[in-house]
Amino acid sequence: MADPVILVLDADPPPRLGRLTGRARVRYADGRTLAERLPDADVLLVWDTASDAVRRAWPGGGPRPRWVHTASAGVDRLVCAELAASPTVVTNARGVFELPVAEYVAGLVLAFAKDLPGTLELQRQRRWRHRDTGRLAGSRAVVVGAGPVGREITRLLHGLGVRVALVGRTARRSIHGVEDLDRLAAGADWVICAAPLTDGTHGMFDTRFFGLLQPSARFVSVGRGPLVVEEDLAAALRGRWIAGAALDLPEGEPPPDSPLWDVPDLILSPHMGGGTAGRRDRLGEQFVSMYERWAVGGTLPNVVDIQRGYVPSRDTPG
Amino acid sequence: MADPVILVLDADPPPRLGRLTGRARVRYADGRTLAERLPDADVLLVWDTASDAVRRAWPGGGPRPRWVHTASAGVDRLVCAELAASPTVVTNARGVFELPVAEYVAGLVLAFAKDLPGTLELQRQRRWRHRDTGRLAGSRAVVVGAGPVGREITRLLHGLGVRVALVGRTARRSIHGVEDLDRLAAGADWVICAAPLTDGTHGMFDTRFFGLLQPSARFVSVGRGPLVVEEDLAAALRGRWIAGAALDLPEGEPPPDSPLWDVPDLILSPHMGGGTAGRRDRLGEQFVSMYERWAVGGTLPNVVDIQRGYVPSRDTPG
Repeated sequence: MADPVILVLDADPPPRLGRLTGRARVRYADGRTLAERLPDADVLLVWDTASDAVRRAWPGGGPRPRWVHTASAGVDRLVCAELAASPTVVTNARGVFELPVAEYVAGLVLAFAKDLPGTLELQRQRRWRHRDTGRLAGSRAVVVGAGPVGREITRLLHGLGVRVALVGRTARRSIHGVEDLDRLAAGADWVICAAPLTDGTHGMFDTRFFGLLQPSARFVSVGRGPLVVEEDLAAALRGRWIAGAALDLPEGEPPPDSPLWDVPDLILSPHMGGGTAGRRDRLGEQFVSMYERWAVGGTLPNVVDIQRGYVPSRDTPG
Repeated sequence: MADPVILVLDADPPPRLGRLTGRARVRYADGRTLAERLPDADVLLVWDTASDAVRRAWPGGGPRPRWVHTASAGVDRLVCAELAASPTVVTNARGVFELPVAEYVAGLVLAFAKDLPGTLELQRQRRWRHRDTGRLAGSRAVVVGAGPVGREITRLLHGLGVRVALVGRTARRSIHGVEDLDRLAAGADWVICAAPLTDGTHGMFDTRFFGLLQPSARFVSVGRGPLVVEEDLAAALRGRWIAGAALDLPEGEPPPDSPLWDVPDLILSPHMGGGTAGRRDRLGEQFVSMYERWAVGGTLPNVVDIQRGYVPSRDTPG
């Protein structure tokens, strides 16, 4: 029997798959060639995680890979109705991004608490002005999204003395259901968005939501862009409804005329949260290990519940 | 017997001492009037902690207060040979600044690890450029200064997964002696200075020291300015000997022509570490509580060892 074909939706630099030599036939596609090569693939590795080529190519005719792995946490860019309805298993890169993203959030929260942006701007202007700052310990945070990223953020902030409420889709054990979100957000110093992008979460952070917050509150999102209604956030900041915000946008560059660039007290970053040096090696090694299990009929970890858009945790009710 | 006289070396806003009404006679002095009022004082409260008026006024003639309390952690600005030789007890504000300063250090360390200064500068220029960043967890820090501030920094960084070595004057239990500093610094990603300013520590961070560090290392000081030879630090940064530094200077504004203002990868801040809102209330309450103990002959906490320049911890060898 011939070795299985791994089709890689490629990005530069490519994954290191040398360990699979003699155990898989590795082929490559880009957004243009994916549709024609998909029927020959047993496994699809989505290495170019910024592309929506899978969602476009999948509905076409012919056989489809039995397994799709994406080197990202989110699956919103690749899943379409036809993939969701198919028997194909979809897995994600759970385990690689959680800690770096949580560190990034902790860094943003501390930067706001200590007004580091103000310090850097004053230094640029050669001005010397002391400002009183806040204590992080004892402040209150709401983390929205009870997946692995949200849990890791919760752990890190808790370690810094922050009183954290974690909000998931449904209440369970120490996790609040989304029905508690408004009440918790109204008393929070920090609202952190680490929710997956689904039909239910699209645009959930809007004028109505920002209107609930305290004027001293800050909003930090490490989720997909469409979770946040950007114009509403910009208006909330310009109107001083809230004291600050940070968006670590996984999407492409805001257009030059985007109102986001110079919204006061808004920190914009190009998907820096999970972007630690060495992550590509980790992502490649993760896929290779998963392939080795899959090739001998083993159970795959990190299987995404396509209907929900994320890997259900063990204590998620069915 | 008349109530004791508390002389306050004042700063704006003044301390809230209303709770002592009817139990003490509170008088005020500034740098100009301190010398003439000192002989009448039983207690001196150094509220203007940026002043060196005590060091100047103390050597004069006449009786001297039995107790001097400073609303700061460091005592370097007030101690002179005559005060050190006198039976007067000196206490400091141990307990108020440790956590805010440690949070400030954690914020700086995370900001460097995630290149937040780079993100803010790119946003200012409306440029969108992803950079890979570092993981804080698993990195190595050396904290110089094993007093309450250094210990609190150690605790917070440890909670973020950093492997921290704490260096004090002499080795004891889990604390390294200063003889280990060079070796530890040479392997560190972060060197944090939280040492008191004494004859032994003056200028200890100099060209020789910066030459020991890795090119990827960052240096963060929350100690007094003279601990660091600023020209040597500037040269080390300009020469790319180290990757970044932050000085939270308790001293006054750097002169407009100071080379510090635009040294690459240097963050300068005007003593922001301990400057949390509400600290003045805490400092006032701390003095009032200490006064209440002192007035009934109780033992004062936070007694500073003048020879060493700090409050010895219980496990400091004598």
